[in-house]
Amino acid sequence: MAKFMDVHTGFVDGTEDQLREVHERALAAEASEGVRFERMWLDPEAGKVFCLSSGPSKEAVLRVHDKAGHPTTEIYELQIEVGRRADLSDTGRSCG
Amino acid sequence: MAKFMDVHTGFVDGTEDQLREVHERALAAEASEGVRFERMWLDPEAGKVFCLSSGPSKEAVLRVHDKAGHPTTEIYELQIEVGRRADLSDTGRSCG
Repeated sequence: MAKFMDVHTGFVDGTEDQLREVHERALAAEASEGVRFERMWLDPEAGKVFCLSSGPSKEAVLRVHDKAGHPTTEIYELQIEVGRRADLSDTGRSCG
Repeated sequence: MAKFMDVHTGFVDGTEDQLREVHERALAAEASEGVRFERMWLDPEAGKVFCLSSGPSKEAVLRVHDKAGHPTTEIYELQIEVGRRADLSDTGRSCG
């Protein structure tokens, strides 16, 4: 399983309820594609949403967003991850 | 404390060692600004690095990156976060 960050725009003044709806619709659609959404963050000033997920491919993640009604085309495969020892079981693991 | 995502470009073909160095230099500089870097991810194909942190302000986070030798100007305040119940103590908490 690879890890991904996808980005959505157009959420200026977005609320927690809106982000929760995006997340819940993604969770409802993810199983059919073998995707798992971990976390989503919203900057309501910039209108940007960042979604952290794992799954078999970029295309699978984007299909989940399509099915959930929140399409995007901006996605990155996070082949490499580092973090604090407290946050990762092994600091500096590869996600690829 | 607010939560932030900042983005760096220019890391095409970046390696795990390079990302670890960015992270370690940030950790060495963060305390003076009251910032805490949580995780960093690298997409070596796009050359993008995403850094998740908490701290008092965007400016404080950017100053840490400046001090660490990896300046950027692209940063977002993640006022709202949602996640799976297993990943967050309370799903859908506000970070602002």
